[in-house]
Amino acid sequence: MSNIVSAAVLIIGNEILSGRTQDVNLNHLATTLGSWGIQVREARVIPDIEATIVDNVNDCRGKFDYVFTTGGIGPTHDDITAVCIAKAFGVPTIQHPDIAARISQRPAPDDVMASRLLMARVPEGAGLIENPTGGPQGFVMDNVYVMAGIPMVMQGMLSTLQGTLRGGDIVRSRSIRAYLGESQIATQLGQIQAQYPDVDIGSYPFFRDNRYGTALVIRGTKTNVLEDVAQAVMQAVRDSGEEPEDMGSEE
Amino acid sequence: MSNIVSAAVLIIGNEILSGRTQDVNLNHLATTLGSWGIQVREARVIPDIEATIVDNVNDCRGKFDYVFTTGGIGPTHDDITAVCIAKAFGVPTIQHPDIAARISQRPAPDDVMASRLLMARVPEGAGLIENPTGGPQGFVMDNVYVMAGIPMVMQGMLSTLQGTLRGGDIVRSRSIRAYLGESQIATQLGQIQAQYPDVDIGSYPFFRDNRYGTALVIRGTKTNVLEDVAQAVMQAVRDSGEEPEDMGSEE
Repeated sequence: MSNIVSAAVLIIGNEILSGRTQDVNLNHLATTLGSWGIQVREARVIPDIEATIVDNVNDCRGKFDYVFTTGGIGPTHDDITAVCIAKAFGVPTIQHPDIAARISQRPAPDDVMASRLLMARVPEGAGLIENPTGGPQGFVMDNVYVMAGIPMVMQGMLSTLQGTLRGGDIVRSRSIRAYLGESQIATQLGQIQAQYPDVDIGSYPFFRDNRYGTALVIRGTKTNVLEDVAQAVMQAVRDSGEEPEDMGSEE
Repeated sequence: MSNIVSAAVLIIGNEILSGRTQDVNLNHLATTLGSWGIQVREARVIPDIEATIVDNVNDCRGKFDYVFTTGGIGPTHDDITAVCIAKAFGVPTIQHPDIAARISQRPAPDDVMASRLLMARVPEGAGLIENPTGGPQGFVMDNVYVMAGIPMVMQGMLSTLQGTLRGGDIVRSRSIRAYLGESQIATQLGQIQAQYPDVDIGSYPFFRDNRYGTALVIRGTKTNVLEDVAQAVMQAVRDSGEEPEDMGSEE
């Protein structure tokens, strides 16, 4: 029996959709959560629009075991994530005393402090996600984890969740490189995939050292099955007249 | 009257969700389409699973003016995009003669050619998207544009669409930099945003030359309004005791 724990990632921010900013959070979340046994099954990049955020949070928290959001928890008018999560759960926001205490340690004029304290808003009933960079904490509401958009801060917050989340089977990978075009091995790969439905065989063309080749990535939860499939794929490469390179667990 | 033309991007591929590959296609699509007057309003990264692809294509093609997909149009078993688009539209796939002709120019053994010809499958009724890199073409079905996942190939395909798509108002940006924390200007920004609901004012903290600052990005379709808002934002920075840097249209 396989034990799959799934996650969706919601990347909240007009700056990603406008092309101003290249997202790097999804990649970090995918690899980190993957190593904890949580598979990112879908990601959505959505704008700073209340109804859109609320709808996507509610859709994803029902479909996936976990939802991780990044972005929109700062002190300005375009930071609406906390309010949206509260609406998604049908609860009011409150000012969390622990976040407010951290924010208040650094003195500021009244209006600046009032803005900073907006970062202490969380939905009623939320727990906190520690922020090792020293700034305001993120929060968790049921299975929805709400983190900053700045990669360094998001990565810090995520690191504090290690060991606190339910992980399932870890998907491992086995990678083989062949200096063959994809079409030269497509039929055999399809046969191997059909024979081993519990693994995913991905085929990715590359160009390296002035040669075209194909990276064959086998992903699955059972090490012995991965090994069997890897041997079959390597044999298929040999049958096509090339010597495979076994890249081990490198993806 | 504003004239908004919207798009969704569907990034199809297990390799993005596993973290093996860092997506760069969304960023290129967002900036290129934006310059043509098409606003990317949502992006979704989805796995190579038929039902998921079909559902997302049908959801997005109803909600947005255009849908652009990347990935899954190669010759191997995990390349299922063409079949999924056909299912989404309720039509069979056919072997497109123009793509088949291009593929057949390069000789190959029968089984290799059979695999390569899988790249000629398109939904019945699809038009083609030219591929300047010389490989098989992409295709378009109604408002859904289906392109390769390899960035260089996707970018080539996209470039051939210039001038063929309906563009709306172009969203322009005006950027101002201030060596202030976001909270120091949050109240004033919120007031300016409320006064000018037709623009989006984004606030993005940065760390540069050993100083913390905030990039204020104003986005909108009307140049004169952008200018008014930029002046108001710069005045707000001055009122907070700093001299703003006008970065012009740099985002």
